[in-house]
Amino acid sequence: MKLIRFGEVGKEKPGVQLENGTRLDVSAFGRDYNEDFFGTDGLVQLKDWLAKNESSCPKVDNSVRLGAPLVRPSKIVCVGLNYAKHAAESGMAVPKEPVLFFKATSAIVGPNDDVIIPKGSEKTDWEVELAVVIGKKASYVSEANALDHVAGYVLHNDYSERAFQIEREGQWVKGKSCDTFAPVGPFIATKDEIKDPNNLHLWLKLNGETVQDSSTSDFIFNVQEVVSYISQFMTLLPGDIISTGTPFGVGLGFNPPKYLKPGDVVELGIEGLGTSKQTAKAYSGK
Amino acid sequence: MKLIRFGEVGKEKPGVQLENGTRLDVSAFGRDYNEDFFGTDGLVQLKDWLAKNESSCPKVDNSVRLGAPLVRPSKIVCVGLNYAKHAAESGMAVPKEPVLFFKATSAIVGPNDDVIIPKGSEKTDWEVELAVVIGKKASYVSEANALDHVAGYVLHNDYSERAFQIEREGQWVKGKSCDTFAPVGPFIATKDEIKDPNNLHLWLKLNGETVQDSSTSDFIFNVQEVVSYISQFMTLLPGDIISTGTPFGVGLGFNPPKYLKPGDVVELGIEGLGTSKQTAKAYSGK
Repeated sequence: MKLIRFGEVGKEKPGVQLENGTRLDVSAFGRDYNEDFFGTDGLVQLKDWLAKNESSCPKVDNSVRLGAPLVRPSKIVCVGLNYAKHAAESGMAVPKEPVLFFKATSAIVGPNDDVIIPKGSEKTDWEVELAVVIGKKASYVSEANALDHVAGYVLHNDYSERAFQIEREGQWVKGKSCDTFAPVGPFIATKDEIKDPNNLHLWLKLNGETVQDSSTSDFIFNVQEVVSYISQFMTLLPGDIISTGTPFGVGLGFNPPKYLKPGDVVELGIEGLGTSKQTAKAYSGK
Repeated sequence: MKLIRFGEVGKEKPGVQLENGTRLDVSAFGRDYNEDFFGTDGLVQLKDWLAKNESSCPKVDNSVRLGAPLVRPSKIVCVGLNYAKHAAESGMAVPKEPVLFFKATSAIVGPNDDVIIPKGSEKTDWEVELAVVIGKKASYVSEANALDHVAGYVLHNDYSERAFQIEREGQWVKGKSCDTFAPVGPFIATKDEIKDPNNLHLWLKLNGETVQDSSTSDFIFNVQEVVSYISQFMTLLPGDIISTGTPFGVGLGFNPPKYLKPGDVVELGIEGLGTSKQTAKAYSGK
């Protein structure tokens, strides 16, 4: 199943995308894609409900805006430096265990919304990432059981302001949490749709030119390892997002570095998880 | 006004605490203390409602458990090294601008709940902190206007696992986000109750012995500066918590360092914001 949410900002409704690309409004199911939905068998119930009600669901025109395909979760946990070649381009050592950081959930936007270059930013950068959506509370789970706690997968662009992240005292969260810095979607593919999350092609183009082109088979720490690892330090709640790190090819790694300017177009995709596209805009007041 | 929440874990109800210490159940008001409450004049409405309905509110016995005095917010933003003497005991330089990090909101518990020493932890430490509760969305706010965005203040113990935080690759969030690591409360004092948040006595005792004893007048960056600063990097939402950093006297700073063992009792308080008390327990399965 492919979960979508569609409609105006802040008024998104739940939907599904069928194999043929048709989008259906499933508001009549009566639940949005939030912690409660993922945590109480919402996926199973929705599937059963759809089997009976699909023909009566209103179609959603493809011109309608997509929102992020889930309600704002309790947290976005990101894995840093999870591809060896990206660690190298960032001038950092390959980590011995996963590097974790958080991204504010207030940064979440729809997959094709504009990315706003923050006030004073000169180093806004891109990062295509495979994100994992948690389906079941996870605390001290083993690698062997980790995938039992996963609901599905989704495309994420982990936008990063490198000066805020690296040059402004301390922790990375400052450069990761600006509004619009987390376009998520187009859809959550439920776990059954993705045969092996650790072997997916992912790519990102800047103004039509491919700059990131890799595979999650290059992960230093795979999905099972990452879910299990994080759950040793905190409880993952249903709907929580884990973003698994970005491969080689971010702006920081160019010589000289290459950062976003207003008008730049960023397109990205992951095998089985669709594509998204953001246009960079300058911050222009509230 | 002093906002409390009381009752069993996960089933807390909203209440208020009167000047004489009496606790009232205000469930009949019909709103819990969440983002919507803080963001849509809930405080003003509650005050008006109380003026008319106080006498009919059921009393809450003082033996009833207190929960955190607000619903899980979108984020907890913490300021690191915000007292010069604490920076020194941590072996770190006084920062030129605020150091920010996040704490998982899944760590929030009631003010007097047990603190669970995580599996494998040998360095669980305490940090008494003044926390700010955001009352109005804050993005790029000036220092002059910062307090307009504050709803109130609350006592917070920013428990920290020093090995997870400092010795386990990278970012601090790993040592800050364990379950029970954020006891919040006993109550939120609304802004009008605290004349100057930058001049409050705060203290923490370990097994009856005072280990932290300072004043927020020793802040490197005061509340106005911190709120304004964070809002340059991310949008603060109503109900969000900012924890403003801890003074000298954490376990890490002792020679040799002193960390929590099962049975240890931690008591803390801030002038005008009451006290809280946690007993350390070993992790014992799910």
